[in-house]
Amino acid sequence: MDGGPMSEPTRKPAVVLLSGGLDSATVLAIAEQQGFELFALSFRYGQRHAIELDAARKVAARHRVTRHIIMDIDLRQFGGSALTADIDVPKHTRVDQIGQEIPLTYVPARNTVFLALALAWAETVSAFDIFLGVNALDYSGYPDCRPEFIAAFETLANMATKAGVAGENRFRIHAPLIQMNKAQIVTLGHRLGVDYGLTTSCYDPRPNGSSCGGCDACLLRARGFTEAGLPDPAQTDENSPRELE
Amino acid sequence: MDGGPMSEPTRKPAVVLLSGGLDSATVLAIAEQQGFELFALSFRYGQRHAIELDAARKVAARHRVTRHIIMDIDLRQFGGSALTADIDVPKHTRVDQIGQEIPLTYVPARNTVFLALALAWAETVSAFDIFLGVNALDYSGYPDCRPEFIAAFETLANMATKAGVAGENRFRIHAPLIQMNKAQIVTLGHRLGVDYGLTTSCYDPRPNGSSCGGCDACLLRARGFTEAGLPDPAQTDENSPRELE
Repeated sequence: MDGGPMSEPTRKPAVVLLSGGLDSATVLAIAEQQGFELFALSFRYGQRHAIELDAARKVAARHRVTRHIIMDIDLRQFGGSALTADIDVPKHTRVDQIGQEIPLTYVPARNTVFLALALAWAETVSAFDIFLGVNALDYSGYPDCRPEFIAAFETLANMATKAGVAGENRFRIHAPLIQMNKAQIVTLGHRLGVDYGLTTSCYDPRPNGSSCGGCDACLLRARGFTEAGLPDPAQTDENSPRELE
Repeated sequence: MDGGPMSEPTRKPAVVLLSGGLDSATVLAIAEQQGFELFALSFRYGQRHAIELDAARKVAARHRVTRHIIMDIDLRQFGGSALTADIDVPKHTRVDQIGQEIPLTYVPARNTVFLALALAWAETVSAFDIFLGVNALDYSGYPDCRPEFIAAFETLANMATKAGVAGENRFRIHAPLIQMNKAQIVTLGHRLGVDYGLTTSCYDPRPNGSSCGGCDACLLRARGFTEAGLPDPAQTDENSPRELE
């Protein structure tokens, strides 16, 4: 493929949804490795874990991002989720209990909203490729993380836009992690040079920014590194994830 | 149907996208007439014509709206449209030139973004009905105003959400004006008691809030009232729409 690191003008642009977590950092590295010019998009949407935006900034800076937008969009106005409203984040006692029901931490239509905004930016910068780090296996059973959702959004994108209707190009929604488990993601990212020490996964971080160790995201992350046989560079004694007694 | 005006608790909730323009005011009246409890959603998205939000507030107050959210979402961060960026709004010399190409005033993926946010609110308030005032005939040829776009979004909504996946109810996207021309819309709204004097349509209002008279929206509105044989109550001598010389 043309468009290696030294040939900026020939790189195709892509919009990458970047949360600051482990998955989206890996996706950014995948898009970079595929030769895309990177436009990273993050959201300040009223999440408890706004600390992830600091992580997103660091991850964007490490990779060769042309522009990083952090967009304000206050989903708290709608209420309805433990991630944005004043409800306690649930803690599982065992990692194998995760994903058997749609969790309280589900944010209504979040990926639909985020992809819609990614599409708006993509059309503006003439990008036809949108990357996101959804995962159908280790992702707590959210409905908007399934392959059929991604396919439906891709169909919509090509009907919704001037660029899609013109038909010279087609939008493609890339969800390269969708069938991977956390261990496979960590293994791939490690190979691509992702610095997981910059990323954060916790839904309920302590005031000092350290992970709670008990939420679904912490448990899944810990299991991923363990199964991959790799240390988690974000890990300190103080925020060691653990299954609760 | 149950759920007439006097029986609040039995009314089904619906989210209605409300711009403050003629079309969405008519749609709000249609949803009200169908017995829905109304949740009106407007956006401050960096539009030049922010004066329409004042109109949206007045229209929401006139109808029996349970809640009206005006959400901030700064689409100017992406650039790319005469409605949000610093580009002159084009003026047509004749109304029959409108709709032959996708215009500069197109905002990338706007209806996708707005419907995604409507969906997030709908899921939160357990609404399965979303109304919007898109129009495939008199709407300047935007791709996200076509029936196939609406159908694709409805499919997506039922895949994207916990409520849609559970399958007890299905989301429905109502676009009751989609095959109507402006004259038919004005005639219907007049019958339903819409006060068009509260609405505004202009893409490029003067500092005092009066209409420019020359943008696509002004020309289409004027033709609609003329063909319906009704006066436009928003009309004063000062802001009389006219075809440019």
